[in-house]
Amino acid sequence: MYGPRDVRFEERPEPVIAEPTDAIIRLTATCICGSDLWPYRGANPITEPTPMGHEYCGVVEDVGRGVTSIKKGQFVIGSFFASDNTCPHCRFGYQTSCQHRALVGGAQAPLLRVPLADGTLVATPEMPSADLFPSLLALSDVMGTGWFAADAANVKLGATVAVVGDGAVGLLGVLSARQMGAERIIVMSRHTTRQQLAREFGATDIVTERGDDGVARIKELTKGVGADSVLECVGTPEAMAQAIGITRPGGSVGYVGVPHGVELDAADLFFRHVRLFGGPAPVRRYLPDLIDRVLSGRMNPGKVFDLTLPLREVAEGYRAMDERRAIKTLLRPEGD
Amino acid sequence: MYGPRDVRFEERPEPVIAEPTDAIIRLTATCICGSDLWPYRGANPITEPTPMGHEYCGVVEDVGRGVTSIKKGQFVIGSFFASDNTCPHCRFGYQTSCQHRALVGGAQAPLLRVPLADGTLVATPEMPSADLFPSLLALSDVMGTGWFAADAANVKLGATVAVVGDGAVGLLGVLSARQMGAERIIVMSRHTTRQQLAREFGATDIVTERGDDGVARIKELTKGVGADSVLECVGTPEAMAQAIGITRPGGSVGYVGVPHGVELDAADLFFRHVRLFGGPAPVRRYLPDLIDRVLSGRMNPGKVFDLTLPLREVAEGYRAMDERRAIKTLLRPEGD
Repeated sequence: MYGPRDVRFEERPEPVIAEPTDAIIRLTATCICGSDLWPYRGANPITEPTPMGHEYCGVVEDVGRGVTSIKKGQFVIGSFFASDNTCPHCRFGYQTSCQHRALVGGAQAPLLRVPLADGTLVATPEMPSADLFPSLLALSDVMGTGWFAADAANVKLGATVAVVGDGAVGLLGVLSARQMGAERIIVMSRHTTRQQLAREFGATDIVTERGDDGVARIKELTKGVGADSVLECVGTPEAMAQAIGITRPGGSVGYVGVPHGVELDAADLFFRHVRLFGGPAPVRRYLPDLIDRVLSGRMNPGKVFDLTLPLREVAEGYRAMDERRAIKTLLRPEGD
Repeated sequence: MYGPRDVRFEERPEPVIAEPTDAIIRLTATCICGSDLWPYRGANPITEPTPMGHEYCGVVEDVGRGVTSIKKGQFVIGSFFASDNTCPHCRFGYQTSCQHRALVGGAQAPLLRVPLADGTLVATPEMPSADLFPSLLALSDVMGTGWFAADAANVKLGATVAVVGDGAVGLLGVLSARQMGAERIIVMSRHTTRQQLAREFGATDIVTERGDDGVARIKELTKGVGADSVLECVGTPEAMAQAIGITRPGGSVGYVGVPHGVELDAADLFFRHVRLFGGPAPVRRYLPDLIDRVLSGRMNPGKVFDLTLPLREVAEGYRAMDERRAIKTLLRPEGD
């Protein structure tokens, strides 16, 4: 990415092992993240041309001499943050706050260097069939992030859940809440395609109103009570206000949209009795369970990819997502 | 209270049953709350002379014709918010957000009208001995609030807990964390008397530094990790910043000091991975358990009362707390 709305497909040097704990992965599939749209839209400044992409799955091509558990030839998935998985924060389940964390960058490419390979990557028991690649790719960030939204919002068996945001993360938040046993899942969406996928993933109600009307509508749907758990999957002040407004006293907001200009009034949260938790999803913690759910056919998060392009058409992938023509774009590295 | 630093002891009409769901309590003991100091210090405006006090225990003198479970002659304790204990918010455990909640006011008096008596009051099995009155009185607010701080901060067996604020609530937050099985309890305090009581209640470490130095000291005590659970028992921006700064990623802040001018940056909370929950403590939910802990001698929260005065000397009680000469003042109604 060279700047707002300027994404170019270019030849770059192949990544090599730089640290003994690195692995090089030949990517089976990669994709564009909703968070990539922040710089694409100019909300985060790009100061120099930046290799993009942080979602990946593929086959281990090479490992550094310090890598002991990950082997060449394994099919692996990893988080967008590399983590040692041994520090106190990792052991507490927050690998995205690892004391040695490193952002994985440049995954919109055929080959990727992943630091801290042993701590970061999870291998499948065998080479998965190609039809599972989209769902396994989704676990690298977007599904894990939806899962964390639901987990952070304390979704329980039988709960009433509301989801703010009908992007890929919000939709997979719906899927996560369903997997966790939520009884009722209300999604705020005005977009027909996304409403359909939300219903497929388990949504029971769709609310098209926004702002105060949206709050009123959800209050009405919940007999004046509000939702037990609310997933905020956008990151704007409006989305956060919406989320807080529809949470019942004692309920929880899980927020995973990177907050942009979101200020909170502690006294308001106090008198509303709203619990708030969010952050970069600790995907590494969830990977073994989520991989198992995909391999056993219990969920199919790959459905969020409604556009597949060869990597060289990456710029069109960004445009389609920016214009909301696509929910999420899967990119096939050349020669795949 | 007539205004800042203007508290007067006056004869007032005796309260009477106004609603069929009311009870009239003859108070055994009452007290001054840390939150009473906000208007006393001019932080909350007093527009007209206001009967003060919302912490109480005593003997039921009369009940309205709609009261079915509470009986004349019972010794009872209730929360500072009256609640029906049947609405969806009450059933969810947040009686301080009851759909019919009403603030109990004027408890710094010999007699008190309590609305929604059946939902609000909890009776002891028999008349407790007089030495337990202070501890039972404490359950009406200050102990329940310390308990909620610990509960909201997710205190678990073996946890490392930090407490910001060495007022009565903070000290009882220490006691609560100890009762919940915390292994290490770090208290921020510069006040010798309070430090001693904190240790008596179970504190293992005292930190006298504040601000960035306080954060650094607690990080040092926790090997750079931070505390699992942090109790914010003040309500100022400084105290909240301190609390957030010493919480480990994935850890929780429970805040019970009524926030005054506390603004939060969601992006900061996001990247810190800090869970935040607080509000008016749902004392009613905790009362049966806390009463049992006092009656069985497992805890003695009444120790926070280090000054006992006859009710007519209430103004001195405020002064002593304002000047931090007393942690908390117990008031004996005349003729008691």
